[in-house]
Amino acid sequence: MNRQDCLSLDAEDPLTALREQFELPDGTIYLDGNSLGVLPRAAAARVQQVIRDEWGRDLIRSWNTAGWIDLPQRIGDKIARLVGAGPGELIVADSTSVNLYKALTAALNLARADAPQRRAIVSERHNFPTDLYIAESLARERGLELRLVDADEIPAQLNDTLAVLMLTHVNYRTGRMHRMDELNRAAHAAGALVVWDLAHSAGAVPVNLLGSGPPEEAADFAVGCGYKYLNGGPGAPAFAWAHPRHTARMDAEQLWQPLSGWLGHAAPFEFTPNYRPAAGVARFICGTPPVLSMAALECGVDTVLAAEPHGGLAALRRKSVALTDLFIRLVEARCGGHGLTLQTPRDASARGSQVSFSRDDGGYAIVQALIERGVIGDFRAPDILRFGFTPLYTRFVDAWDATEHLMQVLQSGEWREARFNQRAAVT
Amino acid sequence: MNRQDCLSLDAEDPLTALREQFELPDGTIYLDGNSLGVLPRAAAARVQQVIRDEWGRDLIRSWNTAGWIDLPQRIGDKIARLVGAGPGELIVADSTSVNLYKALTAALNLARADAPQRRAIVSERHNFPTDLYIAESLARERGLELRLVDADEIPAQLNDTLAVLMLTHVNYRTGRMHRMDELNRAAHAAGALVVWDLAHSAGAVPVNLLGSGPPEEAADFAVGCGYKYLNGGPGAPAFAWAHPRHTARMDAEQLWQPLSGWLGHAAPFEFTPNYRPAAGVARFICGTPPVLSMAALECGVDTVLAAEPHGGLAALRRKSVALTDLFIRLVEARCGGHGLTLQTPRDASARGSQVSFSRDDGGYAIVQALIERGVIGDFRAPDILRFGFTPLYTRFVDAWDATEHLMQVLQSGEWREARFNQRAAVT
Repeated sequence: MNRQDCLSLDAEDPLTALREQFELPDGTIYLDGNSLGVLPRAAAARVQQVIRDEWGRDLIRSWNTAGWIDLPQRIGDKIARLVGAGPGELIVADSTSVNLYKALTAALNLARADAPQRRAIVSERHNFPTDLYIAESLARERGLELRLVDADEIPAQLNDTLAVLMLTHVNYRTGRMHRMDELNRAAHAAGALVVWDLAHSAGAVPVNLLGSGPPEEAADFAVGCGYKYLNGGPGAPAFAWAHPRHTARMDAEQLWQPLSGWLGHAAPFEFTPNYRPAAGVARFICGTPPVLSMAALECGVDTVLAAEPHGGLAALRRKSVALTDLFIRLVEARCGGHGLTLQTPRDASARGSQVSFSRDDGGYAIVQALIERGVIGDFRAPDILRFGFTPLYTRFVDAWDATEHLMQVLQSGEWREARFNQRAAVT
Repeated sequence: MNRQDCLSLDAEDPLTALREQFELPDGTIYLDGNSLGVLPRAAAARVQQVIRDEWGRDLIRSWNTAGWIDLPQRIGDKIARLVGAGPGELIVADSTSVNLYKALTAALNLARADAPQRRAIVSERHNFPTDLYIAESLARERGLELRLVDADEIPAQLNDTLAVLMLTHVNYRTGRMHRMDELNRAAHAAGALVVWDLAHSAGAVPVNLLGSGPPEEAADFAVGCGYKYLNGGPGAPAFAWAHPRHTARMDAEQLWQPLSGWLGHAAPFEFTPNYRPAAGVARFICGTPPVLSMAALECGVDTVLAAEPHGGLAALRRKSVALTDLFIRLVEARCGGHGLTLQTPRDASARGSQVSFSRDDGGYAIVQALIERGVIGDFRAPDILRFGFTPLYTRFVDAWDATEHLMQVLQSGEWREARFNQRAAVT
């Protein structure tokens, strides 16, 4: 395998035209789409239109004439197509953290309605911290128990003390991917519900929230992020999904989610003093959505939907696996002896769309030295060098060139220079 | 008083240059800045810069290089200057509804920590519904009591069963403004805390959260909206403020707010599994902020700060009172006999920056007929015609011309035409 081989892979890649959808800065190999996706070409013009025409000219009327009021559902229906959910089942609102608070509360209310002895929320010790913080807060507030375990200890936790299993589908540090259908089935067999965080999945790997097999393999609730693989822009609004069987039951039993804001009301413009949740998942909408950021998010989601005629997420997934396989092979072949340990599963079926290595020291500085060379990955404390491969725009030659730079950084020792060790506020 | 007199008032107005900060559509008299403020000229270029340079070119680095990570505090410090709060005491995040959930929970936790018998949340029956829905949800969840009373019944509620008094400073329907310092003092004397919603106050009327008199006149918590008088754009992020005495106590006693997202953590990039709230009000930050909408909001806040050399909010307030006084006088003089009843206090000290009339029927259609004529106010169910006067860009002649149109609509009966009675999704 050499650079020419990688160029040949790119030349044969049926998805290569999708890259034209993005503004990619010259001289940059961007392997951080799992932290902030790149700019879709359509976004700047679209947001300008929203600002000048919809806000500036049409002003308040745009809630009707430009359909601002429908944005949470309209964009939600688009994201639903990417995560195996049905139309009307998913909304865009707030941040992942806030949506998780809603979804986890709803799941706890439902799971414990007839089984108050179920007092445990189980999650992974190395889940993304915001998920753990939200669960910690809810557990504290309600006198429940948050149990953090390693991934292989999860099955032993699926018993009649479990209320909710809360997992991130693809781990932010290691890129390890859970088998969603199996865990759903096992948790349901134990009488518990499952809440999934799709931050590192939506737009990156096929997800089938409704399941493709028996009904017990469907998920219960899910939340996710707009600014990573959905290319929705910095801090793009997040999404929330609930299985229709739960929203139906929430109707009947008044099991609300607690963030009962006016736009989740059944009739917000009647301005009635009592809360009456909207039907279905719309009750997960809370306050007024940030329209400019929503508009950019829609452009980002459209870049992923543009893969549908080319095989959609299945095709993106094949390319993602090929890219990450290649990068693992190249780094291990060319950067050996420099203390990098692969943290991402070699088994592609257990891997998201990223490759992570750990290193006992210097990880932060090595990432900084790479960034100075135009290879942008990121560092995750305490010891992870993380490289995201976004099949929409990452090329095989990018994997080659990134490896080349990594090898040079390690061989030259340039990362030891003081300037690469000065921590920035955001790492 | 005639139209020429109004033009003379505009010619003499020392604030008239501030209007140049905005893109105002030709032929429109915009009296709905209390629902969505107009577009600041700076916003389109600023958001383009964020999209093209910060997102498109610099990508993930912009969290450091463009200071995205500091946006909640940086814009928060600017808003603090407009509401009588100190630097570092106010942050921008989420929506008003979500922030109210945080603030009300924190207030309840603090008020009840040593006095669990305080089980009441008191608010106004005609408070904005989202505030009531959030309080209803919290009361339900915690087995507390939400008592809704009329404004003049509030003093009787200030007793040792009261935990939190939760009020909107300026009522969204009537424009009636509470005396914040007096109510704070009275509630504190009763041992309760006060949470203020400043949605119709921030940028419109002088607010002094820290109080100008004895310490017991200071407020406890406040939230507010970015898209009304702060001109931050559709669905602009909201803000939250907490008195420093409370955040200090929250440190010592682990009285968290429940939306413990990662960006409110003391060290978010250490990715530790346990939540440790940031010092001060930063713990009210939750998830990642929507950067594009934050950038537009900052432009909007700057348009209000631009009044500081011209006398700031005191000068804006003088103009606002003059505008609303004028509009009340003109409508009563020229539109009499058409069933309009003033709902806004005649006493300017009890009035925000809006004028509302009720009408037994036809209110919605009358507002639609006015909108077709280019006079944009709004209708609030069940019977309110609402006109916001934003002293930054509303002229005295606008008050005259709006009255002229209103008179013509009422005299001609054109509002009875069927098309004005077709309800849109957003009213």
